[in-house]
Amino acid sequence: MRVVLDAMGGDHAPAVNIEGAVETVGESDDIEVILVGNESAIRKELKGRKFRSGSITVVHASQVVEMHESPTVAIRKKRDSSIRVGIGLVKAGKADAFVSAGHSGVVMGTSLLLLGMSEGVDRPAIATLMPTIRDTFILLDAGATVDCKPENLQQFALMGSIYCKLILDRTKPKVGLLSIGEEDTKGNELTKEAFKLIRQSRLNFIGNIEGKDIFTGRADVVVCDGFIGNIALKISEGLAEAILKMLKQEIANVVAGRLGYLLLKPAIKNFKKRTDYDEFGGAPLLGINGTSIISHGRSSSKAIKNALRVANDFARKKVYEAISAAIQADLHAREA
Amino acid sequence: MRVVLDAMGGDHAPAVNIEGAVETVGESDDIEVILVGNESAIRKELKGRKFRSGSITVVHASQVVEMHESPTVAIRKKRDSSIRVGIGLVKAGKADAFVSAGHSGVVMGTSLLLLGMSEGVDRPAIATLMPTIRDTFILLDAGATVDCKPENLQQFALMGSIYCKLILDRTKPKVGLLSIGEEDTKGNELTKEAFKLIRQSRLNFIGNIEGKDIFTGRADVVVCDGFIGNIALKISEGLAEAILKMLKQEIANVVAGRLGYLLLKPAIKNFKKRTDYDEFGGAPLLGINGTSIISHGRSSSKAIKNALRVANDFARKKVYEAISAAIQADLHAREA
Repeated sequence: MRVVLDAMGGDHAPAVNIEGAVETVGESDDIEVILVGNESAIRKELKGRKFRSGSITVVHASQVVEMHESPTVAIRKKRDSSIRVGIGLVKAGKADAFVSAGHSGVVMGTSLLLLGMSEGVDRPAIATLMPTIRDTFILLDAGATVDCKPENLQQFALMGSIYCKLILDRTKPKVGLLSIGEEDTKGNELTKEAFKLIRQSRLNFIGNIEGKDIFTGRADVVVCDGFIGNIALKISEGLAEAILKMLKQEIANVVAGRLGYLLLKPAIKNFKKRTDYDEFGGAPLLGINGTSIISHGRSSSKAIKNALRVANDFARKKVYEAISAAIQADLHAREA
Repeated sequence: MRVVLDAMGGDHAPAVNIEGAVETVGESDDIEVILVGNESAIRKELKGRKFRSGSITVVHASQVVEMHESPTVAIRKKRDSSIRVGIGLVKAGKADAFVSAGHSGVVMGTSLLLLGMSEGVDRPAIATLMPTIRDTFILLDAGATVDCKPENLQQFALMGSIYCKLILDRTKPKVGLLSIGEEDTKGNELTKEAFKLIRQSRLNFIGNIEGKDIFTGRADVVVCDGFIGNIALKISEGLAEAILKMLKQEIANVVAGRLGYLLLKPAIKNFKKRTDYDEFGGAPLLGINGTSIISHGRSSSKAIKNALRVANDFARKKVYEAISAAIQADLHAREA
């Protein structure tokens, strides 16, 4: 597959982006990376690095979207940004997927504008992978659609299930609706209506799931609106950081603690790996005609590499086509 | 102050409740505890325990609300439950505050029914204390009002500020609105409107606060609707548990880890203490005419003790009267 990487997106761009790209093509034969951005900056970073001939190509884009820019203004005015040129390559059929650690609002808006929504999809969702004590789960929407209708949540449930089946290879993904109690009468107006709709669809719906249960692995897919999903994601990031900081403070207060910490270092490192977003490789924007992956602004080269792998997987397994087909089949079934 | 304790509420009632009550009156002279529930069960637990004469009294209630019961049915039918009888004592002026680790929906509903909303308050909020890397913050609403209007969030901001000032002794509490970006244009329809209202009020409003920042101590009071607040609270509880579990798993995988864990035990114990809801002593229901404190169902005797202390503090410092006065002053200021 041909995956476009926004060479200019992210806090450590372009250096880590190009490092991630070079490592990716070194490890996998089935992926080509198209680097989009300031050509001379990219060539400078590529200089001296070794990679298979033809496995990395460069496409110039003269503009860069900065993180503080207004999405609407940036989308309208920066027609030659690395984001727009990159997604344009997917749109033109010259690439199979797009990855960016840049301005997520602009990546989302430009993906919607150029690639368009899949037929029958009402609103898109960002699907993000999170850790459980055993494995992982998919949370969606993590911020694409902040004000949702019940129908949106029902479609998110469907889209998340397909992602889970095709990419995580789980046969009957358990779908939970994030709410404030397990009973179907618990929730707000939105989730109570969504509950009824999801129950009608042919999904492995386990009902409401409470916040305290999402990390136990009870559900493979956790559905919520984009406002709550984004807050849930950020709270988890913030709390994981705070807990490690508090533990370190407590350790510093205990004499034997420093020795204990040294002995525990490998365990803490492994733990960090399990909870580190770098490992999860970016969040796909679901519901659009194409593959567009949003990576964390703080992405390291490892995060970029994982995002490229996820993008390659999504394109190869035709996830967006499967979602589009499932949504249309679902709509027909509802009409019948 | 005279504080009513629901002796029958919680997973470990009545034993831990009575233990908590006895410890409380042993430590503080300024508090009397009225135990409400099955008198013979209470007397049995009290037998052999030592406490100041008159510091603990017992009031019989023949019914107990079970955790699985429907709140509406329980409130209507169980007229002699420990919750109803207990709140009735506050209503009748025979007690100054009420504490229960029982069915939170029934505690909330009965408090509203018997004590009523404060004049000018549109909807109530449960205010819960959560840890930061430095100290604590107040999150509200944690589940009383799941579908909110912007005006509700504005009143929550005001109520949380007064709680913070009077109970936590912070002079100019920093109030943040939980949202998905710091700019005032970020949020959903509800928070964007609430932002404008809170900005107009005479609070130390720091604007939107993201989920990742709530544990850093940037805000003393974090405002959100009851659906999101409950999910945020439960996610935090669930994640903290999952992180400790994951750390233990990783530690078990490392040879030196077990020794390291032993050396770290005091640090981990202190850390748990900092994040343990037992330490925070229950969440007050704000916006009503009286003091009603909701404790966690899993409350230990320590949690009960802390909840009694919080209830005593709220009653002594006349928090609900201060909230009522502030809400009315705010409404007058808006009309003017």
